[in-house]
Amino acid sequence: MSITSRLAQLCCRISYEDIPAPVKHQAERCLLDCLGVAIAGKDHQATTIVRQYVERMQGAKQAAIIGCDSLAPAEQAAMVNGTMAHVHDFDDTHLPTVIHPSCTVVPAALAVGQWKMVSGKQLLEAIVTGMESALRIGLAVFPEHYDRGWHITGTVGVFGAAVAAGKLLGLDATRLTAALGTAATQSSGLRELFGTMGNPYLAGHAAANGVRAACLAEAGFTSSPRPLQAPRGWAQVVSCRSELDRVIDGWGKRFEMLDVGVKPYPSGVVTHPAIDAVYRLRQEHGLSAQDVESATLTANPLVAELTGKENPSTGLEAKFSVYHCVAAAFLFDNLAVDEFTDRVAGDPRVAALRDKVVVVTDTRWQPDQARLEVVSTDGGSYSTVVEHAVGSPGNPMTDAQLQDKFIMLTEPVLGGDGSRKLIELCWGLSAADPAELLAATVPC
Amino acid sequence: MSITSRLAQLCCRISYEDIPAPVKHQAERCLLDCLGVAIAGKDHQATTIVRQYVERMQGAKQAAIIGCDSLAPAEQAAMVNGTMAHVHDFDDTHLPTVIHPSCTVVPAALAVGQWKMVSGKQLLEAIVTGMESALRIGLAVFPEHYDRGWHITGTVGVFGAAVAAGKLLGLDATRLTAALGTAATQSSGLRELFGTMGNPYLAGHAAANGVRAACLAEAGFTSSPRPLQAPRGWAQVVSCRSELDRVIDGWGKRFEMLDVGVKPYPSGVVTHPAIDAVYRLRQEHGLSAQDVESATLTANPLVAELTGKENPSTGLEAKFSVYHCVAAAFLFDNLAVDEFTDRVAGDPRVAALRDKVVVVTDTRWQPDQARLEVVSTDGGSYSTVVEHAVGSPGNPMTDAQLQDKFIMLTEPVLGGDGSRKLIELCWGLSAADPAELLAATVPC
Repeated sequence: MSITSRLAQLCCRISYEDIPAPVKHQAERCLLDCLGVAIAGKDHQATTIVRQYVERMQGAKQAAIIGCDSLAPAEQAAMVNGTMAHVHDFDDTHLPTVIHPSCTVVPAALAVGQWKMVSGKQLLEAIVTGMESALRIGLAVFPEHYDRGWHITGTVGVFGAAVAAGKLLGLDATRLTAALGTAATQSSGLRELFGTMGNPYLAGHAAANGVRAACLAEAGFTSSPRPLQAPRGWAQVVSCRSELDRVIDGWGKRFEMLDVGVKPYPSGVVTHPAIDAVYRLRQEHGLSAQDVESATLTANPLVAELTGKENPSTGLEAKFSVYHCVAAAFLFDNLAVDEFTDRVAGDPRVAALRDKVVVVTDTRWQPDQARLEVVSTDGGSYSTVVEHAVGSPGNPMTDAQLQDKFIMLTEPVLGGDGSRKLIELCWGLSAADPAELLAATVPC
Repeated sequence: MSITSRLAQLCCRISYEDIPAPVKHQAERCLLDCLGVAIAGKDHQATTIVRQYVERMQGAKQAAIIGCDSLAPAEQAAMVNGTMAHVHDFDDTHLPTVIHPSCTVVPAALAVGQWKMVSGKQLLEAIVTGMESALRIGLAVFPEHYDRGWHITGTVGVFGAAVAAGKLLGLDATRLTAALGTAATQSSGLRELFGTMGNPYLAGHAAANGVRAACLAEAGFTSSPRPLQAPRGWAQVVSCRSELDRVIDGWGKRFEMLDVGVKPYPSGVVTHPAIDAVYRLRQEHGLSAQDVESATLTANPLVAELTGKENPSTGLEAKFSVYHCVAAAFLFDNLAVDEFTDRVAGDPRVAALRDKVVVVTDTRWQPDQARLEVVSTDGGSYSTVVEHAVGSPGNPMTDAQLQDKFIMLTEPVLGGDGSRKLIELCWGLSAADPAELLAATVPC
């Protein structure tokens, strides 16, 4: 039996009762965070373009677009919602693979869930099964696949979305295998588009393709029985190395979801230790922007590779600039959505400070670690080491911090009561349902 | 300026008047052939599943589904039409890259063309521009990209579809560059799915994604300015070697479309010299199926690599079995759609004859060449060499042969008058329009 078929069987067998309590809670956290960042991204220009494209198609009213009083076919709702969930680059991250898992799996699960009127328990089952599938397929090809230039959030997200959607459609293992095959042939996405609208779009694209793969399989669409590990299967084609046993080893015992971290800042996750370091120096030594003569960051090479844009000109590019992140953290008391706009990217104060940032990379530093040394204009020298950035598995955001983030993102849209209502629905997911959740994302 | 931007500029500049007459005629041939194979594939199970999925979405009535009295959003019409155009593996082939170019470009052009009510001349412009773009991008990465396991028809088809759609939407070079970027991040498809419904679907998927990429770009969606040749751009990610100058070198002087051949048989193009050889031996020596003791085929290694299935169990698999093709050519006087069904694949007479076929590969033989040696049950030995298979650039199907193929495929659906009317519309494309063409694909 192929790895794909075994994965499909394992996915079919997962039921709400078997999922350990911490994993259930993590699913609720991921859902809450995903809805929060999506609501904050619902009116971004990238989201608006995709939503208007979908609205112009005037399709069947199967599933809700987050934050809007409108419905679309499940596939298309997943496309819009996936785009808005990733548009601020503020959504959760599986640090071992840098996959953003919720932005593909949650939109697919919500869309099919509402369409098929499933329960909150079924929704949670689908989210866990989809996320585990995506993360494990990602682990099987990371880092070579990512290093090659693939946008892993999308390339493996389509598998997670297909599994989540397939689970909610009640596919048996044979049909779920076929859905994974269709997902494999749709798997795509280039890191080259980071910093453009193509980046968040890819999450929506993967979510939508996953829904479609599951729907086609439900209707009897055929595919390769071993799309992942055949000699010309997905893993071989998209990566120079793969370890496909990781897709199924320890399934049901070890949950990769538990290594998913919630982001405190809406920029590439590898910039976070640097930002934490700035805030710590500011707090400990009262340093401010005008005190900085130079700021030298020592960090893992991924920091330069992923976020090495020295002079970002747009908000989307600024998310991929550790220079911008360090400079902005000196200038602003909190780094949230507003600090990654085109306006702030072009602010001369930010640009001047960016020029003072030096990045030194060193493989001995883990991606969630950094050292920052600031030389001040009066000749003083200050340094700090961040061992685990806030939001990383070694220093996770608490539920209270997650709620604060959610409220910061959603209160301006939903008001305080609306924001708190959605928090309660997510923490009590097993008693809620997808339609109820989605309705609560719409401003009164 | 990037290769992608230069390509976009060249695409924007092409106008009907500049296209040489033989290229215009070739576009008409490709359109005619594409419509013929699509009409013959409109009720295939793979098509039906995709069409029913689209119909369930009940979207805006922008463009026609070929052979049906129904309309769908342009993107979705392109998806259904692309699937049916490739479902019999009977559509045209660019032999230097084994790309099937029409099944992605023509559906995208027809869908956007009808939606935007363009003229026949604009449709022809879009088909030529889209096909040239796809074929040249394919040439830049062939054969390494294909050898790795990529379904090149889909991976480059999405670029061709985006260009054709973008041309009809009137995109300027900046927006067309953005459309190519969105196409690049959507580019996908695995050869592993050959012989399953996932194979024709990929053509529909690429056609639809191309339409979407162009529509998003029209609305201002941003992307990388150099998606093809950046250090982590498409070419680098999907191929271990690329020669991107081929995308633009000689543009407007050399037309790759002229190397596109129409298929006489609905099986992998590399099986065609073998089939020609069987018919020649039957004609020259009166050999029949029961005379065959053994049949030894000597041909290019691609024959074994692409069509090496010794015991196909379905019609879709039989298209990728040179064993089936040789056996069926001995048993049937013509190899068309009916000779590649599940029933014929399972026919014991065919299976017995398949077991007598031996394939020897030799790199000295070109993909359009083959030698067949038959030892008969009475001890006789007969052999023939095919220098250029029918339908290859060295031995193209004549217009009359193409019409015969079209009539064979469409007369059972449209009747003789309907079939001939559509032929006339294609030969007079510059005076027709997309809506008229699509309406003529519907049985009275």
